[in-house]
Amino acid sequence: MINIKMIYRIMGFLILIETAMLLSCIGVSLYYQENDLNSFLITSAVTACTGFLLMLIGKNAEKHLSRKDGYIIVSLVWVIFSIFGMLPFYLSGYIPNITNAFFETMSGFTTTGASILDNIEALPHGLLFWRSMTQWIGGLGIVFFTIAILPIFGIGSMQLFAAEATGPTHDKIHPRIGVTAKLLWSIYLVLTISETILLMMGGMSLFDAICHSFTTTATGGFSTKQASIAYYNSPYIEYVVSIFMILSGINFTLYFFCIKGKIKKFFRDEEMKWYLASIAIFTSIIAFTLIRTSSMGIEECFRKALFQVASLHTTTGYATADYMTWAPFLWAMLAITMIIGGCAGSTSGGLKDIRVLIIARIIKNEFKHIIHPNAVLPVRANKQIMSPSIKNSILAFTLLYIIVSVISWLIMMSLGVGCIESFGTVISSMGGVGPGLGTCGPAYSWNHLPDAAKWLLSFLMLIGRLEIFTILLMFTPEFWKKN
Amino acid sequence: MINIKMIYRIMGFLILIETAMLLSCIGVSLYYQENDLNSFLITSAVTACTGFLLMLIGKNAEKHLSRKDGYIIVSLVWVIFSIFGMLPFYLSGYIPNITNAFFETMSGFTTTGASILDNIEALPHGLLFWRSMTQWIGGLGIVFFTIAILPIFGIGSMQLFAAEATGPTHDKIHPRIGVTAKLLWSIYLVLTISETILLMMGGMSLFDAICHSFTTTATGGFSTKQASIAYYNSPYIEYVVSIFMILSGINFTLYFFCIKGKIKKFFRDEEMKWYLASIAIFTSIIAFTLIRTSSMGIEECFRKALFQVASLHTTTGYATADYMTWAPFLWAMLAITMIIGGCAGSTSGGLKDIRVLIIARIIKNEFKHIIHPNAVLPVRANKQIMSPSIKNSILAFTLLYIIVSVISWLIMMSLGVGCIESFGTVISSMGGVGPGLGTCGPAYSWNHLPDAAKWLLSFLMLIGRLEIFTILLMFTPEFWKKN
Repeated sequence: MINIKMIYRIMGFLILIETAMLLSCIGVSLYYQENDLNSFLITSAVTACTGFLLMLIGKNAEKHLSRKDGYIIVSLVWVIFSIFGMLPFYLSGYIPNITNAFFETMSGFTTTGASILDNIEALPHGLLFWRSMTQWIGGLGIVFFTIAILPIFGIGSMQLFAAEATGPTHDKIHPRIGVTAKLLWSIYLVLTISETILLMMGGMSLFDAICHSFTTTATGGFSTKQASIAYYNSPYIEYVVSIFMILSGINFTLYFFCIKGKIKKFFRDEEMKWYLASIAIFTSIIAFTLIRTSSMGIEECFRKALFQVASLHTTTGYATADYMTWAPFLWAMLAITMIIGGCAGSTSGGLKDIRVLIIARIIKNEFKHIIHPNAVLPVRANKQIMSPSIKNSILAFTLLYIIVSVISWLIMMSLGVGCIESFGTVISSMGGVGPGLGTCGPAYSWNHLPDAAKWLLSFLMLIGRLEIFTILLMFTPEFWKKN
Repeated sequence: MINIKMIYRIMGFLILIETAMLLSCIGVSLYYQENDLNSFLITSAVTACTGFLLMLIGKNAEKHLSRKDGYIIVSLVWVIFSIFGMLPFYLSGYIPNITNAFFETMSGFTTTGASILDNIEALPHGLLFWRSMTQWIGGLGIVFFTIAILPIFGIGSMQLFAAEATGPTHDKIHPRIGVTAKLLWSIYLVLTISETILLMMGGMSLFDAICHSFTTTATGGFSTKQASIAYYNSPYIEYVVSIFMILSGINFTLYFFCIKGKIKKFFRDEEMKWYLASIAIFTSIIAFTLIRTSSMGIEECFRKALFQVASLHTTTGYATADYMTWAPFLWAMLAITMIIGGCAGSTSGGLKDIRVLIIARIIKNEFKHIIHPNAVLPVRANKQIMSPSIKNSILAFTLLYIIVSVISWLIMMSLGVGCIESFGTVISSMGGVGPGLGTCGPAYSWNHLPDAAKWLLSFLMLIGRLEIFTILLMFTPEFWKKN
């Protein structure tokens, strides 16, 4: 049975949280005295009313939530947040087109960072703040969802985290969700504030520093500047942002362990080691090629390479260089880092390193299995043997991810979008990255895409963000069957 | 221990078989009195000497073959056949470039059918006959390999057939490989001769009829005409070829059952049902769209749709229409049929219907699993429950297939080949199809590709043909470890 009343109640509560966030933007708007104030006032009023109304309808709801209820709430919240969240852009007239406004907001809440804006600096501060904040909320939401909520439901492939550091059942961060939330919130805040301070030390204004810290911690990638981080032309800022992107791509569970003093667990985590190793390898290859082929100095080559790899591998999506102007195999390599994504349980998107790692081991085992058909060959991650059901789930997840991507890619081409652009936008949306390839690369906005493509990509951002199954589940008859 | 002597011996024997085939081409060449005679004489002399020499070296070999030996032989035979098989093209001067000659021959033996020839009709009859025959041998070889050899080795994912009609261990066609080979050979011959007669009844010359029957039964796709089957402009011929392509895409094991009178088993086979259903569905969609959008009559639309779907789904690759001139979503759909491919245990390539069917069921189960986490949900194919290890193998195989494709695609783009062309040639080569997309579509040869791309694609044809693991295994250190 679906507990509709409870769903109303929770949705109402969440919308009130969104209202609170909108109120902070009113503060910014008042401070800068710009013309976006009205749009925020109207939006806050609408969300406040809706929130209270839903809370009212949901009053006296039975206090239990089924697995299905959980899925409905999680699926709905990103959509509803985006529907309300686009209002400031739309009402202020800065994004006068519903498709674009929705796309931009969904891109925000899913921490994708793809933009349809061709002149970001034209936006008033309030809207810029809101735009960055959507990512920050989205990032916090997704970490909370994956670390705190999924394990409670105890679901196979979804809580990949089952398959990683924390192990299927042990090592739960904390049995009580409230405590988990508080810890999580603290780590998130520490990362954000540290980066803000470090960016300001590099000469960035407080406003820009906060906005960029919001979108770095969320591995979102929205910038307050059209040229993204390249605008500042500061090696220091580029290094700071690189480091914080990398930190935000690490499983937040590991930070919990650090807080608890289990430092060893942090450094022994296989996924993190592979994640850092892959950043190092990709950066080296790209840096080395740039040194040989470009006129940049060695340090600059290294910096640009590190920044792009960190940005795309963590699915943040900031730019300090237009990698489409580099040799094709360099952006091909960057495309692969995008598909892989960061660590599970972080704010990053993509397939996640742990899945790729386990898949590589499964395939390696298949080879061994051919040579030694009777050998028992377990696949391990963090020293734990993966059960056949977990292996199956991970493989099935990845295949579904690919199938959805390929079909979307073909649909995009059918809509008249170029081959490489279609591919780039699809993997970028599925992985929550931001920039794509070709004319949808880091140097351009996605504004020129047809409306249908924007809606499709918005949908992909959503399903990619929520690990595909969550959303697609809503489209299965099985889900709506009465028990 | 690798039994090198026995490998020499078997390779020698196989090369003598190739010699016999070459001798038949000498017959054709003598009959038509064309200038390709010398090249065949030299090639046969070379292969005959090599064959006898290897047989001699391998004399007194111990008569056992290990699993590893089997893999080495299977991997080598396609390469060595291509190296010798390209000689007639090269020596006659009709394909004066080694890269092209090797590509064309590998495309033949792997029953791919992609061609670098821009004027096929310029070739003398002997060479055309040889070109078609490479596919016929390749097709017979692969069916023999997959139906008779793999089950003997009893290998997991490779003998997918384990997972299909015949079941993992039961229903082996015949315990003795010699009997299997004879049965197989008979079916293959019956298909070829029937088609030859039917094509001649449609007005095709004996020579063309034989050549086309060779390449249809093998789902190869080489034609003796530059315009492929479109040349004949005959609805009758198009229907005959369509039907035989479809027949050749069916698991040959099922024909064994028919011969044994187990007709029910034939019609109950799930893979075949899905295979035929998918042809029907894709044909209907494409025919319907063509009726609405083109100026062709209803029958013609249906015929063109059926032919293209049959040709690409069975990975044959004949053309009666340039599907690149159709609406983009039509060729996108055809690209999907290419990737899927025909039935396991047939001459066709691609992923194979049974794998796609099982994967679809596994993914469906994952959804169910999320809703009912404690339910035991078996995946069945032909009423048999798939073991976790088989499911794992199928998923791992498919992922490896995709990973190899994506990496190759990016390499192709790095070589300067267009995005859609790279994608088309890669999936076409991996699946053994023939035509690709864009300027590598059915209306063009692949001659304009850079040499490096041709070598890469030749390699992809090979690994795609031998179910990937066979060839890639040779590149693992594990394989060459003693013990």
